[in-house]
Amino acid sequence: MRTPNTISGMSKVRVAAFSISIDGFGAGPRQDLQNPLGVRGTELHNWLFHTEVFKKMTGQSGGECGVDNDFALKSLENVGAWILGRNMFGPVRGPWPDDSWKGWWGDEPPYHVPVFVLTHHARAPLEMKGGTTFYFVSDGAEPALKQAREAARGKDVRIGGGVATIRQYLRVVAIDEVHLAASPLLLGQGENLFAGIDLHERGFVVERSVAGERATHVILHRR
Amino acid sequence: MRTPNTISGMSKVRVAAFSISIDGFGAGPRQDLQNPLGVRGTELHNWLFHTEVFKKMTGQSGGECGVDNDFALKSLENVGAWILGRNMFGPVRGPWPDDSWKGWWGDEPPYHVPVFVLTHHARAPLEMKGGTTFYFVSDGAEPALKQAREAARGKDVRIGGGVATIRQYLRVVAIDEVHLAASPLLLGQGENLFAGIDLHERGFVVERSVAGERATHVILHRR
Repeated sequence: MRTPNTISGMSKVRVAAFSISIDGFGAGPRQDLQNPLGVRGTELHNWLFHTEVFKKMTGQSGGECGVDNDFALKSLENVGAWILGRNMFGPVRGPWPDDSWKGWWGDEPPYHVPVFVLTHHARAPLEMKGGTTFYFVSDGAEPALKQAREAARGKDVRIGGGVATIRQYLRVVAIDEVHLAASPLLLGQGENLFAGIDLHERGFVVERSVAGERATHVILHRR
Repeated sequence: MRTPNTISGMSKVRVAAFSISIDGFGAGPRQDLQNPLGVRGTELHNWLFHTEVFKKMTGQSGGECGVDNDFALKSLENVGAWILGRNMFGPVRGPWPDDSWKGWWGDEPPYHVPVFVLTHHARAPLEMKGGTTFYFVSDGAEPALKQAREAARGKDVRIGGGVATIRQYLRVVAIDEVHLAASPLLLGQGENLFAGIDLHERGFVVERSVAGERATHVILHRR
């Protein structure tokens, strides 16, 4: 799935600011409307909630401007399109009953670029305020990536998550760079990012590891 | 397996300075005489090799005196007895052919206290220089812990490893504190510390996480 874009270094397929627990979970168990990230899953993102970037994105003032904030900023730079799994878009399962669910993020989602949602169930594109349009791709992960690359117009494609979606692209070696935020937390159960996927064999190495205020930022790069 | 000692806080059963990769492995794959920690397993301990503590222990001069060194020092404090798995003691499998294998560490091993080796095959105690005696315990992990506690005389029992031995004691909730050194490394394969063990459910929480020079030190404490 390497494309000329990747080889030239002009654009990347990236995972960024993806939080995992010490025991490797990217979401807690028993995800539902009350716990979209699973039980205790939101604690994974504690580092992000304190940043100025996050406060601004959510209409709050203040926030901290240290290492964690730098990585949060970087995660948003040069992103031309996103890919999300269906479960990250919302709690609706099976065929769409109607068009009422428009994501977790209100009228103006924080993407501001085309977002490709993987689903088995077709649905018309959904144009939101602020430049975000959700496209529902029902013919598979690779076609979704192809569309996202085209829509990104030379910028990066960010694989937003959740865990299952990232694992899907890691398995086919379609990701160039992964920024993990390792949070000081044990989840014990949930969706494990690494289980059964040998990232070393797939060519990933740790490029660097930087201590933030509330998480350790680990950059994986594919050779 | 809680004993009065644990409740009074006088002594602990500890894992300390135990290195794991980003993907949760405490040893690499294909352990043998050439690769006692499995392929690329020694890279897990890179942080330790640079410390003054390690240099001194191995008869070298120099070494660094930062955060990593502080944690290496702390890992050796107040240890009254050790427990090691058979594979950590040596590469010999099955019944002992003779008494020629005396561990990886030469005539004067770096323990200087009684060391209890879990094995299915009985063997006479082995007294080494410098205060280390290896006792071979063939009646199970719990009797070994009981003996180690008695031998430790109020000090801590350190579960040295490897992964299988630590997992054995984690499963029966016999460990009070775990100090992990999370190394910036992907192993991809090997012995995973966490797989199938829910440490949250077993009462462990992250007490603190401290950035060292070459690893992130994570202290797990059992509530």
